[in-house]
Amino acid sequence: MFRTHNCGELRLSDAGKTVILSGWVQRVRDKGGMVWVDLRDRYGITQLVFEEGKTKDELLDAVKKLGREFVIQAKGEVLERYAKNDKLATGDIEIMTEELNVLNASKVPPFLIEDETDGGDDLRMKYRYLDLRRNPVRSALQLRHVMLQKTRQYLDSQSFLEVETPVLIKSTPEGARDFVVPSRMNPGEFYALPQSPQTFKQLLMVSGFDKYFQIVKCFRDEDLRADRQPEFTQIDCEMSFVEQDDILNTFEGLVKHLFKEVKGIDIKHVPRMDYADAMRLYGSDKPDIRFDMQFVELNEVTQGKGFNVFDSAELVVGINAKGAGEYTRKQLDALTDFVKRPQVGAKGLVYVKCNEDGTFKSSVDKFYSQEDLKEWAGKMNAESGDLLLVLSGDMDATRFAMNVLRLHMGDELGLRNKEEFKLLWVLNFPLLEWDEDTKRYHAMHHPFTSPQKSDIPLLDSDPGKVRANAYDMVINGVEVGGGSIRIHDRPTQQLMFRHLGFSEEEAKAQFGFLMEAFEYGAPPHGGIAFGFDRLCSLFGGSDSIRDYIAFPKNNSGRDVMIDSPSPISNEQLEELAIKLK
Amino acid sequence: MFRTHNCGELRLSDAGKTVILSGWVQRVRDKGGMVWVDLRDRYGITQLVFEEGKTKDELLDAVKKLGREFVIQAKGEVLERYAKNDKLATGDIEIMTEELNVLNASKVPPFLIEDETDGGDDLRMKYRYLDLRRNPVRSALQLRHVMLQKTRQYLDSQSFLEVETPVLIKSTPEGARDFVVPSRMNPGEFYALPQSPQTFKQLLMVSGFDKYFQIVKCFRDEDLRADRQPEFTQIDCEMSFVEQDDILNTFEGLVKHLFKEVKGIDIKHVPRMDYADAMRLYGSDKPDIRFDMQFVELNEVTQGKGFNVFDSAELVVGINAKGAGEYTRKQLDALTDFVKRPQVGAKGLVYVKCNEDGTFKSSVDKFYSQEDLKEWAGKMNAESGDLLLVLSGDMDATRFAMNVLRLHMGDELGLRNKEEFKLLWVLNFPLLEWDEDTKRYHAMHHPFTSPQKSDIPLLDSDPGKVRANAYDMVINGVEVGGGSIRIHDRPTQQLMFRHLGFSEEEAKAQFGFLMEAFEYGAPPHGGIAFGFDRLCSLFGGSDSIRDYIAFPKNNSGRDVMIDSPSPISNEQLEELAIKLK
Repeated sequence: MFRTHNCGELRLSDAGKTVILSGWVQRVRDKGGMVWVDLRDRYGITQLVFEEGKTKDELLDAVKKLGREFVIQAKGEVLERYAKNDKLATGDIEIMTEELNVLNASKVPPFLIEDETDGGDDLRMKYRYLDLRRNPVRSALQLRHVMLQKTRQYLDSQSFLEVETPVLIKSTPEGARDFVVPSRMNPGEFYALPQSPQTFKQLLMVSGFDKYFQIVKCFRDEDLRADRQPEFTQIDCEMSFVEQDDILNTFEGLVKHLFKEVKGIDIKHVPRMDYADAMRLYGSDKPDIRFDMQFVELNEVTQGKGFNVFDSAELVVGINAKGAGEYTRKQLDALTDFVKRPQVGAKGLVYVKCNEDGTFKSSVDKFYSQEDLKEWAGKMNAESGDLLLVLSGDMDATRFAMNVLRLHMGDELGLRNKEEFKLLWVLNFPLLEWDEDTKRYHAMHHPFTSPQKSDIPLLDSDPGKVRANAYDMVINGVEVGGGSIRIHDRPTQQLMFRHLGFSEEEAKAQFGFLMEAFEYGAPPHGGIAFGFDRLCSLFGGSDSIRDYIAFPKNNSGRDVMIDSPSPISNEQLEELAIKLK
Repeated sequence: MFRTHNCGELRLSDAGKTVILSGWVQRVRDKGGMVWVDLRDRYGITQLVFEEGKTKDELLDAVKKLGREFVIQAKGEVLERYAKNDKLATGDIEIMTEELNVLNASKVPPFLIEDETDGGDDLRMKYRYLDLRRNPVRSALQLRHVMLQKTRQYLDSQSFLEVETPVLIKSTPEGARDFVVPSRMNPGEFYALPQSPQTFKQLLMVSGFDKYFQIVKCFRDEDLRADRQPEFTQIDCEMSFVEQDDILNTFEGLVKHLFKEVKGIDIKHVPRMDYADAMRLYGSDKPDIRFDMQFVELNEVTQGKGFNVFDSAELVVGINAKGAGEYTRKQLDALTDFVKRPQVGAKGLVYVKCNEDGTFKSSVDKFYSQEDLKEWAGKMNAESGDLLLVLSGDMDATRFAMNVLRLHMGDELGLRNKEEFKLLWVLNFPLLEWDEDTKRYHAMHHPFTSPQKSDIPLLDSDPGKVRANAYDMVINGVEVGGGSIRIHDRPTQQLMFRHLGFSEEEAKAQFGFLMEAFEYGAPPHGGIAFGFDRLCSLFGGSDSIRDYIAFPKNNSGRDVMIDSPSPISNEQLEELAIKLK
């Protein structure tokens, strides 16, 4: 037997017992007559003690030879400590060691296995198995484990059936780029890895499964940004005989359940906001509503006063940074530089300080009187001590820039507390979005999303105006999930494909099976998918999803630990009937 | 709102309520003045009733136009039935329908959506979404859902952590053929899909995760037999600081838990059998121990009596088919034909009938006296009315044939009850097996399995004799899981690779990361993987795993419903830097 207990469970009440522990050497402290070893495993740390006179000499010699991360087994009696350590769950006791077994030695690790390590990103990725020994990394994955169990628990309790859909499916050009898998048995043909189980879950609804879920790996061959992974995990769900409200209520329930069970937080109310309002008030379809600072459109009160910048702008929009009226010249210049960076793209920044004496100091005093500025302040509910920040230009670009500025001000003013969680549904998304590159409309969500019935006539006249039965869940400004009520009849699905530029043949070749299924009694249905990696990182208070993935890939899609991808043999290529270019 | 209740939940106590139901039309019975509709969903069937005089005329007209599998919504009052149907959970009530909405029409399905259908395999696969509507198919997947939840529940309760390992990994030539995925970002290089998460779960042990599990898709590009799928699901587990017994006890616990929770069956004892004994007594490493009929080796009592067939045989072995002494000539001929088929490969079959009067009638009376046959019967514990069946020849081939014959006799004599479950651990497998094709030893389990310490010296002298710390769980003659105590140090792993014919460079290129990990404090560890598809089919009492997979592929690896695999575009090939041959 390797152990009677783990390294996290012994307490004062165990004193007197003879126990066996196994684990890793975290630290050896040698004070001459006494030697202590911190023995670590996943469950905690227990102190082993060796004492001249009490401990056999060969044991004392052996313990002095232990290195960091050696794997050992120790047997001994549990004793009450003289000097207790209240930072450690096992801090009341130590083990007077009588036997010691080195189960495996360890080379000196390339970085410190401590909460704060000296290892850089690349080194930690190459030795991910050592990085995973560190408390913060292991905790992140333990959180993920709990999220997995609690998610399934809730969905199971709501009569959802977990169904595994295939990983080897069919490549379709719609959406992102597919990863493909050459078929040896069908030379010249390829499977694709799913970007989501979308069509399968809809077919399960046609099958009468009623409520489906799956926590499932999905794949996208995209150029990777910092926070994208080629493979990622989704909580994927679909329900039949539902309207939008049924879905919102069910999955609000899921997220509330997770907050309650995992973090002990009661989420009371989840507000719902129109996409159009989100864009107007926050310049974003995923507003962070932990803080207010809503956009105020100022065209009416700013234009026609001779300030050409504003006069020629499609949108003049301001935010009120409450209490920031004391910002220095230097701070204001920094803000101006911030919005003028190419990633933000504003031409400049207008500010108005609301002084304590009721006067205003602005960067456009030349054009606007105190009365004018008072009017702005009135529209923006500003009080003495506030700072008004105004941007102008084209509608979309200005909203975009102001959103970035608002979030930045939220950070600067400490309004984005990671331990506070504000949930939001964003509703009534546009069905289509124009793509400048291909000069055609794309589905904003995906081609299976239903248009709002009242907007269908607009499909021909003004496609960009058609709203979809689509919704996103946003937490603290992060989109964690999205879904829609689907099309469930062939004619509407065909109409949709036509508007997306599919020829009838293309639609049939790629999605004929789905449209045919719709002819055999497809129920009304809809669903949602949550980005599980992101949800975990949000719950863990981290900005990086990578911390919440056991073996992530780097920005070139490489796993540097196992060195993958890698060349394959000519025999393999031969068998697969492909050649390298 | 589409429904207030589902089609399985209304009871007599609901009488008088006005309800809304949605579902599929299972059947319309039109008796002139009365029309009944069986409305079906996943939860059950509820009877709708329409009655001339009570029901509005347009509704009566409408209901008569409903076809099978139409999707409808009905509103009405719950009434107590005159003629109750005790075969139906809702059989006490019916709905006097006041409103009817056709939510979607349906073409006539290509086969009957009934428990017994008229659809052939191919048709049902093409329209799998309709096949999934049938009760037996849906029940199979509901069973799978329950198995998934209960498995995780148990493992979570035992402190196992669920960790998702990557799907895009690295191709290795050991084991079966990999599916590969060309990498666009790393031209000329490929990912592989995992045949199992073996190396990752071992790395998680090196990371100190202590107990890991995952229910995970795995992939093998093999030529498919009836019951093989290119993608399949495993319950994959690994534990640190364990000996073989710890693992056997833990996973015996899992399977007992599943039997108890899913089928209400208490499994008391799980016997453990040596691989060598399994081969000797059953001619198989996965004996079905629901029935006895063990092999009895008869060389001693059959050889040297002038019967050349036996005299020249390496093995003469018999089974006692208890109570089959009345088998007719025709039945015995059929058995002889059965064992002589090429798949079984025996040259002939010797039988001995134990007559009621204490005499024996055999097919070798010419060579053996009644005394001789009595001696055989004694060795085989035969009584009057028993039938002894004897095969002979080379050891392995004869054991193989006798195993097939034993199972066949078990079937014929009704000894293999699908509702009875007998579990068994088979232990002490050989480490290596000789492969005639490549003229070298292969790992019987995989290259990470540890040899038994006492047998290590045999690695050089008699490799085939080395036993592994490996174990299989067998239920009713089906191998449902297998695993081993792993190698956890570099020298032993290198030794193993050398014996498997890897050059040092090959071993390093493919598994260098694992061997390096072993040098940084790898704990002793071991694990197991269960074939989840098979486990489900066993619990469901079916021989086919396909019934337990929502969207299976056919024997050419095709999904005939979505028509995959399929050609991809030249642009895709171009981007991936590959060409077709």
